[in-house]
Amino acid sequence: MTLETVSQNRSHEGVQSVCRHVSRETRTAMTFSVFVPAHEAGARLPVVWYLSGLTCTHANVTEKGEFRRACAELGLVFVAPDTSPRGEGVPGDPAGAYDFGLGAGFYVDATQPPFADNYRMWSYVTDELPELIAGHFPVDAGRQSILGHSMGGHGALTVALRFPGRYRAASAFSPIVAPSQVPWGIKALGGYLGEARSAWRRHDAVALIEDGARFSGFLVDYGGADQFLTEQLRPELLQHACTQAGIPLSLRCQAGYDHSYYFVSTFMEDHLRWHAARLAG
Amino acid sequence: MTLETVSQNRSHEGVQSVCRHVSRETRTAMTFSVFVPAHEAGARLPVVWYLSGLTCTHANVTEKGEFRRACAELGLVFVAPDTSPRGEGVPGDPAGAYDFGLGAGFYVDATQPPFADNYRMWSYVTDELPELIAGHFPVDAGRQSILGHSMGGHGALTVALRFPGRYRAASAFSPIVAPSQVPWGIKALGGYLGEARSAWRRHDAVALIEDGARFSGFLVDYGGADQFLTEQLRPELLQHACTQAGIPLSLRCQAGYDHSYYFVSTFMEDHLRWHAARLAG
Repeated sequence: MTLETVSQNRSHEGVQSVCRHVSRETRTAMTFSVFVPAHEAGARLPVVWYLSGLTCTHANVTEKGEFRRACAELGLVFVAPDTSPRGEGVPGDPAGAYDFGLGAGFYVDATQPPFADNYRMWSYVTDELPELIAGHFPVDAGRQSILGHSMGGHGALTVALRFPGRYRAASAFSPIVAPSQVPWGIKALGGYLGEARSAWRRHDAVALIEDGARFSGFLVDYGGADQFLTEQLRPELLQHACTQAGIPLSLRCQAGYDHSYYFVSTFMEDHLRWHAARLAG
Repeated sequence: MTLETVSQNRSHEGVQSVCRHVSRETRTAMTFSVFVPAHEAGARLPVVWYLSGLTCTHANVTEKGEFRRACAELGLVFVAPDTSPRGEGVPGDPAGAYDFGLGAGFYVDATQPPFADNYRMWSYVTDELPELIAGHFPVDAGRQSILGHSMGGHGALTVALRFPGRYRAASAFSPIVAPSQVPWGIKALGGYLGEARSAWRRHDAVALIEDGARFSGFLVDYGGADQFLTEQLRPELLQHACTQAGIPLSLRCQAGYDHSYYFVSTFMEDHLRWHAARLAG
């Protein structure tokens, strides 16, 4: 695969790159960012995957996430993909809404027309992009972890639950934990996967746990002043499912914080330290 | 003066606000950001002024500057003004260039038509905005410091040199140190102040020092890979002037870094610690 370097900037003694490639999964050009901290020649570093939320590209967390300082200190590679295919000919929401289509891939492989040809973000983030990263950057595929924000928190939790042997840690900021039960998720999963709800369960963290999926433990932060908390996020559903299943969950309500990157950036270092402890050795 | 709160977000245990007001100086609506860390009721905190570079608004450093974590730890209020008047009827560069007019006020009070009516950024950042901040936020006017980036580094150095008793510390990232001697500055000072170069000297850090202005010391970082270094920034001119005048200057070349916020954010904490040490007590 050919990888085009869009930009490279030295930051916190490492290199923040933005790259572009033509994806076999989405059949579009895809852009992602990757931060590689300073390291000894030949070293292979643990890699943290960050999945972004609705409307975001790689750029939101790259500019506002405040992750580089901690990644530099902890020796972590940080990869941030886009949230959907984009470009000419890629179908979006018929009404132009922000919560479906462009910027809202929900980390699934769509089965429904007209989305099935391009909206293959599940395979993109779990298969194609890991292969690309492993081929071009100094990462240790045996030491991976994943986190995300909002829709990307949904992505991180579902990916971890379906690949518990691949990711040593998983955490989320303000995740959608049960998309089958909330408006954003019902619209997205219905639109991409069709009306048969049985197909949704593999893309719903709470349903996956109910169906027997397990993971070593989650760290989840949400803001007490998050405007989406009670209708779209519903962290209590994850708490209930984890308790029933015996999955360790550190669920923290951060009083006064909202859904924005002002919240994410505040607790990013905490999450990265939690990941680093599980990626060590 | 009426102050409109555009947004407020909790971050790093403090509050990041964006505010708007109608400026008596620029005769336009002006937007600025201010971060107030958590503090005891009734406390008045030291305040750090941050002046931004060409093309920037308050938003660039607010989103990309990575200052909140350190300000929260050190107990510093951080204020970021816009870089020029904006809006309907405000004249810009006749050719639409980025280095003059909108987004490029150069922290002077223009004397030349058609700019003199609105381009009064010197009085705005040294007089009107400090008064507004003191009236609405818990700051200690006896403990102020100033820093800036590029054109804003020029602003920070000249403001400090002209008010050495007001600011306890001054520092800069990649500053324009001698605008009278470089293309950006010659265009801007000529356009705003006219062709008589005697009027430029009060807005040129190197000339101010040559003319007898003094300050307790500066911290200046620049990137070794900064594309503007040799033509526009020329830190060696500041070094020479400070040496001649006996002004302590900590001038650091950071190898591999460019002119971007990836550079600024890397060394922001360093600068804020340097300011905090001088603002203590």
